[in-house]
Amino acid sequence: MSDTHPFDPLSPKEIIQATKAVKQLFQGQCPNFRVITLKEPPKQEMIAFLERERLGQSHISRPARIAFVQVIVRADHGANELTELLVDINRDAIVHREVLTGKHSFIDSAYMKAVENACISDERVQLEIKKLKLPEGASVVVEPWAYATDGMNDMSERTSMCWFYMRLLDNPDANYYAYPLDLCAEVSEQLTVTKVYHLPSSENERVRQEARPYDPCKVHSSAMSEYHPSIRPSPRTTTKPYQVVQPEGATFTTQGNLVTWEKWTMRVGFNYREGLTLHDIRYDGRSLFYRLSLSEMFVPYGDPRAPFPRKAAFDLGNDGAGINANNLSLGCDCLGLIKYFDAWHNTSSGEPLNMPNVVCCHEQDDGILWKHTNFRTGNAVVVRSRILVLQTIITVSNYEYIFAFHFGQDASIHYEVQATGILSTAPINIGDNVGYGTVVAPGVLAPYHQHLFSLRIDPAIDGVANSLQVEESHPLPFGDPSIHNPFGVGYTTKSSIVDVEGGLDLDFNKNRTFKIINEAKTNPITDTPVGFKLVPCYSQMLLAHPESFHARRSEYTKHAIWVTRYNDDEFFPAGRHTMQSLGGEGISSTIARRRNDPDCDTSVRNEDIVIWHTFGSTHNPRIEDWPVMPSEKMVVGLKPVNFFAGNPSLDVAVSTQVDNKSSLVDTAEPVVCCSE
Amino acid sequence: MSDTHPFDPLSPKEIIQATKAVKQLFQGQCPNFRVITLKEPPKQEMIAFLERERLGQSHISRPARIAFVQVIVRADHGANELTELLVDINRDAIVHREVLTGKHSFIDSAYMKAVENACISDERVQLEIKKLKLPEGASVVVEPWAYATDGMNDMSERTSMCWFYMRLLDNPDANYYAYPLDLCAEVSEQLTVTKVYHLPSSENERVRQEARPYDPCKVHSSAMSEYHPSIRPSPRTTTKPYQVVQPEGATFTTQGNLVTWEKWTMRVGFNYREGLTLHDIRYDGRSLFYRLSLSEMFVPYGDPRAPFPRKAAFDLGNDGAGINANNLSLGCDCLGLIKYFDAWHNTSSGEPLNMPNVVCCHEQDDGILWKHTNFRTGNAVVVRSRILVLQTIITVSNYEYIFAFHFGQDASIHYEVQATGILSTAPINIGDNVGYGTVVAPGVLAPYHQHLFSLRIDPAIDGVANSLQVEESHPLPFGDPSIHNPFGVGYTTKSSIVDVEGGLDLDFNKNRTFKIINEAKTNPITDTPVGFKLVPCYSQMLLAHPESFHARRSEYTKHAIWVTRYNDDEFFPAGRHTMQSLGGEGISSTIARRRNDPDCDTSVRNEDIVIWHTFGSTHNPRIEDWPVMPSEKMVVGLKPVNFFAGNPSLDVAVSTQVDNKSSLVDTAEPVVCCSE
Repeated sequence: MSDTHPFDPLSPKEIIQATKAVKQLFQGQCPNFRVITLKEPPKQEMIAFLERERLGQSHISRPARIAFVQVIVRADHGANELTELLVDINRDAIVHREVLTGKHSFIDSAYMKAVENACISDERVQLEIKKLKLPEGASVVVEPWAYATDGMNDMSERTSMCWFYMRLLDNPDANYYAYPLDLCAEVSEQLTVTKVYHLPSSENERVRQEARPYDPCKVHSSAMSEYHPSIRPSPRTTTKPYQVVQPEGATFTTQGNLVTWEKWTMRVGFNYREGLTLHDIRYDGRSLFYRLSLSEMFVPYGDPRAPFPRKAAFDLGNDGAGINANNLSLGCDCLGLIKYFDAWHNTSSGEPLNMPNVVCCHEQDDGILWKHTNFRTGNAVVVRSRILVLQTIITVSNYEYIFAFHFGQDASIHYEVQATGILSTAPINIGDNVGYGTVVAPGVLAPYHQHLFSLRIDPAIDGVANSLQVEESHPLPFGDPSIHNPFGVGYTTKSSIVDVEGGLDLDFNKNRTFKIINEAKTNPITDTPVGFKLVPCYSQMLLAHPESFHARRSEYTKHAIWVTRYNDDEFFPAGRHTMQSLGGEGISSTIARRRNDPDCDTSVRNEDIVIWHTFGSTHNPRIEDWPVMPSEKMVVGLKPVNFFAGNPSLDVAVSTQVDNKSSLVDTAEPVVCCSE
Repeated sequence: MSDTHPFDPLSPKEIIQATKAVKQLFQGQCPNFRVITLKEPPKQEMIAFLERERLGQSHISRPARIAFVQVIVRADHGANELTELLVDINRDAIVHREVLTGKHSFIDSAYMKAVENACISDERVQLEIKKLKLPEGASVVVEPWAYATDGMNDMSERTSMCWFYMRLLDNPDANYYAYPLDLCAEVSEQLTVTKVYHLPSSENERVRQEARPYDPCKVHSSAMSEYHPSIRPSPRTTTKPYQVVQPEGATFTTQGNLVTWEKWTMRVGFNYREGLTLHDIRYDGRSLFYRLSLSEMFVPYGDPRAPFPRKAAFDLGNDGAGINANNLSLGCDCLGLIKYFDAWHNTSSGEPLNMPNVVCCHEQDDGILWKHTNFRTGNAVVVRSRILVLQTIITVSNYEYIFAFHFGQDASIHYEVQATGILSTAPINIGDNVGYGTVVAPGVLAPYHQHLFSLRIDPAIDGVANSLQVEESHPLPFGDPSIHNPFGVGYTTKSSIVDVEGGLDLDFNKNRTFKIINEAKTNPITDTPVGFKLVPCYSQMLLAHPESFHARRSEYTKHAIWVTRYNDDEFFPAGRHTMQSLGGEGISSTIARRRNDPDCDTSVRNEDIVIWHTFGSTHNPRIEDWPVMPSEKMVVGLKPVNFFAGNPSLDVAVSTQVDNKSSLVDTAEPVVCCSE
């Protein structure tokens, strides 16, 4: 027990203990354990613990190990009942229990498999498939998705949307997204197919009941639409191997989930929903961030025709970035000397379920860190940038997302998101087009959509009480006798500190810069508060109308920056329960409730605050994204501003040929570096 | 001769020939050869030649080899006369000759050395230095800069601004920027010190004549301000070696200046002013870009107090990115298997001057290119991204800039600029501060400034006649009965094509996307014109007042995007001659002149057009940028949009452990990849 850190995910033993405690509560009821995960200790307790830890006194008292457990049981009235519990593992005690009426758990993949089976074996579905008169050799694939609320139905029970595709090749890895069918079915909670209809296949079409035979002209060459090497022509052979060798081993060390690298220390966490989380991030012993994580992502489609507005995925809240994390050894996702972290999820009966290699940790060379040549002497000093990468990859049906934290020797952090995988497709008549999609193959429409991520930044810049400063660069007035600017070239910075919780926007035209500062700690050289600035990813915010369900359910997508007071239960800016949600539970509703509550403090100045950065991309597909898209990269940065006494990487050793062993391509001779 | 490509820079032999022809013209006059460089052939001729080359007929007729020569001679009237000539090398003939009255050549470093010497040995300067009562062991350093026009003086002759610093350590690589002195001197064309005065050292001070003794409290520990390893404490020893091994050699090949790599072909060029230029960039034989280059950069300072408005550097037009390119072997700037390109400049007497290793060419692994895991089978397909890097680095006094073109297997191009080196400093009284600078050490102010680059994009998307399309993503109206958008989630793209030359701005809030398209070539799958889109670097534009000389001289800094018709002599968006320029010669003046000329065609639709992207950063220094700044990266992208038939990198071989040879960090065991 003493080896477990309060931030460490639950061990298999702890999962078993939690299951046991909960099962006692639901004897005879066969609870479906949706998740058993760590409930991170209250921050106030953790801050005190981290301080004791820092002083070597962590044995004195440790926060309780609490499990958050979500179960579904069939209640007396026959319907499913969602219950969330907190279990104090070591005391074997249920310390909190809450029935969530009207809320849904996240996607149950076993249930979705049952939906798929119920759908494909439904008589009416089989009949409609026959009417399609599909080509010889076709096999139909059903892909159930969660139903994104559109206001057309009662959301109190689950409804699954079944989208239909087909394969023509007899290969389970054939890209069925290349053959979207115009069939659609809805499946009820009870696994009954309640509706079957046909999808619109042109701009003016609407949902219809009448089947149309599948247009054989849609059948196209597999070369256009297949990505799997077993189906593709032989790959190019021009690319020669490129290997990374680290002859003296890795620079980072790990001790359990503690990672130490080049003055950085941090703890790796992982949970079913956020995937990779990072905790207690320090540089040279100084506190920087209490916690960093992806807190939500939303992928709404922009096709207005029913039922496509039901395609809008919360890939964290609905699916779980942890649950859907790839096993990273299977496919050579990382280069060099690699450390993998496993995670533990649970089965529906509450047994521990190992998820191997969900996080990889490795280093990369990132080019030149800094350089100066004294032109007077010709002496050049070059230092190369080594970065530490902590990476995870998720697959959510058709799409993949790569999430990576990069740590620099200059005390910078970058969060890189890459979108790859396969576009979601819909049927379209040959020769047609629509104003909200791209035709990527005969009969295949790739609808416009957005990817909107929320990076949750819980700072602790030299301590927990921080402020958010907004700084802009403005020209000094020209021609104003009271302001000295005789040549019209002067400019200055204007700053204000955000007082209360709210949403804010980016403006590069004013060089608007958001800095998280500690007003109680002043840099003695610059005489300004110590801080870290956000290097944002400039992105279009949600396009859906504010009154739409897309907007009401994804409140965080309204602004690029949010600042809130820290609360132990506020992790998810679209709300705790996103499946078939109705809105009103996200970050702006939370802020509004507090603003309207006279007993609530909404001050975010010199307080324990959280910053949420919304970023992403408006993805209007291009043919180059088909059949699988080259990754599109989105980057967010966090950089020190007047936090240190100078360049934190000043002491990194100069780049030398002895270490680097570069060679000349013509002769394979080693490169001569004058600095040696 | 037949081996020389029309895009190849002049060979030493050609330089000698050009010199000979020009010397004949200036017999007895000892011309100072400022530059002898290739005048690239007229584009119409080159397009025809490239076509013949493509067909294997390049022997038929080749464009003439023309040298652009700039000389300064002492004219009869005694003043310096700047002349520009074009020499047809093979015909030994001067085909153009122009005296540039009122214009200046770029910085002559030999002349600047003479300025430095004249300044430091001037009696009045020596007297003022004595009055400073500098600390024991101090040696004074004079750093002459070009005088950025401020309207205070006649600009027809050169005036150099001499900024003063000191070293306290007896080491030629000591960072004298850590000790800015409040002395300033102006040196005339004739190398006479015309003025000596003292700089303002607080917000309300102005230029003054009276000396003040140097404040000994400004003397600070060298650990705070030194970067050179010979002066720094011992470097950290924690960073373990990281090497790149390419056991089968490089994937790229070079033949002269022709680079071939992964379906890419391009020609490397180089000149004194732009540095690295890329020509005839093709992918899979298809024409993409005729030419890519950095065309100017401007670094204006935002300190309003005289004489600091005279600090505003055109590092291309004034200094020359080619002339100031680093010799890249000296310092381990590149990792892996490297190809270096040399360049040839000339001495003042017209002899060829070798500049070795000014461009390096190498590959890098850039993470995952694309990935998909079929959740139904669990089969993962991962392809890693290999990129080709062509890089050059310049040193301009205190600053360094790294310029790199990155080519991807997905047919993307990225242009990365990194700023590093040492902040320019000015004196400040201890305890003081100003609204337009950061105190980085006792008595050391790092004034606010901007870096504004212009990337010149000369497209040839499937041919020379292109258009610039501006596309935005807009919500469909909600509640408008004539527009089908019942759920309020629909959105569409609206595009317009730019008709005439002009400047445009970025707007991420509308996802405004600039695409260079060929309206005559339609993608048969998407039914849209083939094109490449710009992935811009969102940056604040120039802060200086439009009426200031900074603004008038750097017209391109007003807008993020410019589109012009191609003209053989339009390469420089701030004008051909930037030294002590007066304004009115940049891109917007050129456009205005054409707009007002009824004989001029200003159409940019289906025309030979050029796109210029202004980007950079408003740099308000932080202490972490001192004494040498960790590189700040700015990235611009160019990506195909509906140019190909699908993902261009679909045929890249999957990532395998056999090729990659990754290892587990704990055990050094090879990683097991299921795909093998």
